[in-house]
Amino acid sequence: MTSVQLPTGFSVDVANVGIKDDTDDFVVIASDRPCAATAMFTRSRFAGPSVVVSRRHTEDHRLRAIVVVSKNANVATGAQGLANAEELATGVAAALDIEPSDVLVASTGVIGRQYPMDKVRAHLAELRWPFTGDDRHDALAAATGIMTTDTHPKTAVASLPADAGTATVVGIAKGVGMIEPDMATMLAFVLTDAEVPAHELDRITRSVVARTFNSLSVDTDTSTSDTAAVLANGAAGAVDLAELEAAIEAVCLDLTRQLARDGEGATKLLVVRVRGARDDDQAKRVAKTVLNSPLVKTAVHGADPNWGRVAMAIGKCSDDTDIDEAAVRIAFGGAEVYPAPIGDDELAELEGYLRGDEVSIEVDLGISHGAWTVYGCDLSDGYVRINADYTT
Amino acid sequence: MTSVQLPTGFSVDVANVGIKDDTDDFVVIASDRPCAATAMFTRSRFAGPSVVVSRRHTEDHRLRAIVVVSKNANVATGAQGLANAEELATGVAAALDIEPSDVLVASTGVIGRQYPMDKVRAHLAELRWPFTGDDRHDALAAATGIMTTDTHPKTAVASLPADAGTATVVGIAKGVGMIEPDMATMLAFVLTDAEVPAHELDRITRSVVARTFNSLSVDTDTSTSDTAAVLANGAAGAVDLAELEAAIEAVCLDLTRQLARDGEGATKLLVVRVRGARDDDQAKRVAKTVLNSPLVKTAVHGADPNWGRVAMAIGKCSDDTDIDEAAVRIAFGGAEVYPAPIGDDELAELEGYLRGDEVSIEVDLGISHGAWTVYGCDLSDGYVRINADYTT
Repeated sequence: MTSVQLPTGFSVDVANVGIKDDTDDFVVIASDRPCAATAMFTRSRFAGPSVVVSRRHTEDHRLRAIVVVSKNANVATGAQGLANAEELATGVAAALDIEPSDVLVASTGVIGRQYPMDKVRAHLAELRWPFTGDDRHDALAAATGIMTTDTHPKTAVASLPADAGTATVVGIAKGVGMIEPDMATMLAFVLTDAEVPAHELDRITRSVVARTFNSLSVDTDTSTSDTAAVLANGAAGAVDLAELEAAIEAVCLDLTRQLARDGEGATKLLVVRVRGARDDDQAKRVAKTVLNSPLVKTAVHGADPNWGRVAMAIGKCSDDTDIDEAAVRIAFGGAEVYPAPIGDDELAELEGYLRGDEVSIEVDLGISHGAWTVYGCDLSDGYVRINADYTT
Repeated sequence: MTSVQLPTGFSVDVANVGIKDDTDDFVVIASDRPCAATAMFTRSRFAGPSVVVSRRHTEDHRLRAIVVVSKNANVATGAQGLANAEELATGVAAALDIEPSDVLVASTGVIGRQYPMDKVRAHLAELRWPFTGDDRHDALAAATGIMTTDTHPKTAVASLPADAGTATVVGIAKGVGMIEPDMATMLAFVLTDAEVPAHELDRITRSVVARTFNSLSVDTDTSTSDTAAVLANGAAGAVDLAELEAAIEAVCLDLTRQLARDGEGATKLLVVRVRGARDDDQAKRVAKTVLNSPLVKTAVHGADPNWGRVAMAIGKCSDDTDIDEAAVRIAFGGAEVYPAPIGDDELAELEGYLRGDEVSIEVDLGISHGAWTVYGCDLSDGYVRINADYTT
């Protein structure tokens, strides 16, 4: 994997402080100047202290740094966990000589355990700004440091067209399980040197996240730690906002597809596109129901041309009484399987298509013009093996 | 497995007509006199023709016979499929010399294929009433004939106390995948020789099904064929209705636990009990969210004492803003794990508990007095293997 340069003004410090083992587990990303920032978090009723603290710190839409602890989620840890999250922000702020409220805290990993704070404090005492590591400009090092059970780091990059400003947009993300973003069940950080007013960045981010991270589901489980943040430090000057949105969307969609493809145990990317719905909400609901059906996911895994399971999954949306099986059309990779009766040749062709590493299921509800696309993966015995033996 | 005698007046004919292979696939259960009857069906928008026909035939709360075809669901089969379901009812009615509208039709198996009607017609032409097979009084033969991927037949029996009438209640059921009943994703038939007015039977059935089959979930997928029917032929005379309800509930709960334990790939029964909820609806919603979480199910499978995943699953109910993690208590088999911090000894004990073949998770939301119990199973690599290779 080639290294990806962070945008102008951003740098990173990656370290192992011994949270769980000897892999990198402590990442600080910082900007040399204030950033307009916006962030979206999990809606979980068991949201972790990191989320509680970060929600407060992003209220003013200003950030300078992000600290990420991996391998321990600091969730369901009570008052002690909240105090530890606050100490993390304060410690990073002191090292960087910035305000604690300009530090976003994120953490994923096992639930229900306190941080080893002695190790964290020892590391914070040694942290020096500006960062001096050889990899301080490398987004890949940051993406690697925030991984838990990811099999590889995820980065994405987009540049604005020459006439729209010189900014670049760089994203990193992690997350392979407990992923049904609502907001995203993962960590995703998008950095840009574009200059953009905070309220515009907020509008762009909400719109992009809805179409990307919030359209991702690996296993329907929603993390207690989900955080997606976008920081713009302005080092590259003003840009065309429509082009910036396009670049941010390209980065987020790229990361979304990488997250889906690297879902725990996943062997292929599954994309479900629904159109002809009453509205976009209905399209998204039906698309997610198909994407999340264990029977659809296992059929895709086994390249079993059992398209009836897609019909079954659509049928599960029983409150959508305007869905009429007589109006529905189902296709795989553009080849219709329902209602047109398909023969053995077409079934064999479908089986061949399902052996590919990306499977697209298209559903037309035949009601109106609502449409939505969602991203996920197949369900394999690998998923079970990974998750039946995680803490132990 | 010991044989279970059908209630007085009921008999069964079990045959192989070659729907898919040479196992029994065609079951007719009939009463020698009219029955008060009630039935509940899947809410799927892709409900099969069997459901469409049976819904119509139970409107008058009278039935005499049930015909079940296994290994082919007759779903997503269009006008031809509907005509075939009607022909099935008519053919059985002709053989038994009863009205087609007194025949309930049920069918489960692969979706999207027409019945082999030539084989079905040949069998119907030979069907004679009264039934003469050696196993004509055997509920176990009926339960075996309706199986698809079940690993064993499911029957349950209850008798009323001596002073409440002499009736017995016998139930049979099938279903191991595509099971999140709403109504039940399965077939379940309960027969009794009790005499009970149709409207009382209906009331009793709705109440019992809510607490049993509709509290069952194997994999969150909802079948297109779900049917639960209760037939009472009155041969044993009048009974105490409260005792009858208790007997029907005992039979349905027994079948529900059997269905959960035999979930595809399941190695253990998982029971989730929620109390302290705002109301019963909230308790059921939270209980199902925990029961259906793939991460909870895989942890239970692997005997991984990762109780944080239960906290995560409760947290997913993000619209339930009255859920406060500070008020929540979580226990396994009566031993509290949250909020009380638990040590290594307790974790080892929990791991030992999880190795048992029945796991109970108890959640107290600490809000009010709503309570509900739901039944399911663990998620294993066996589930994936079974479902990645079903039609092929």
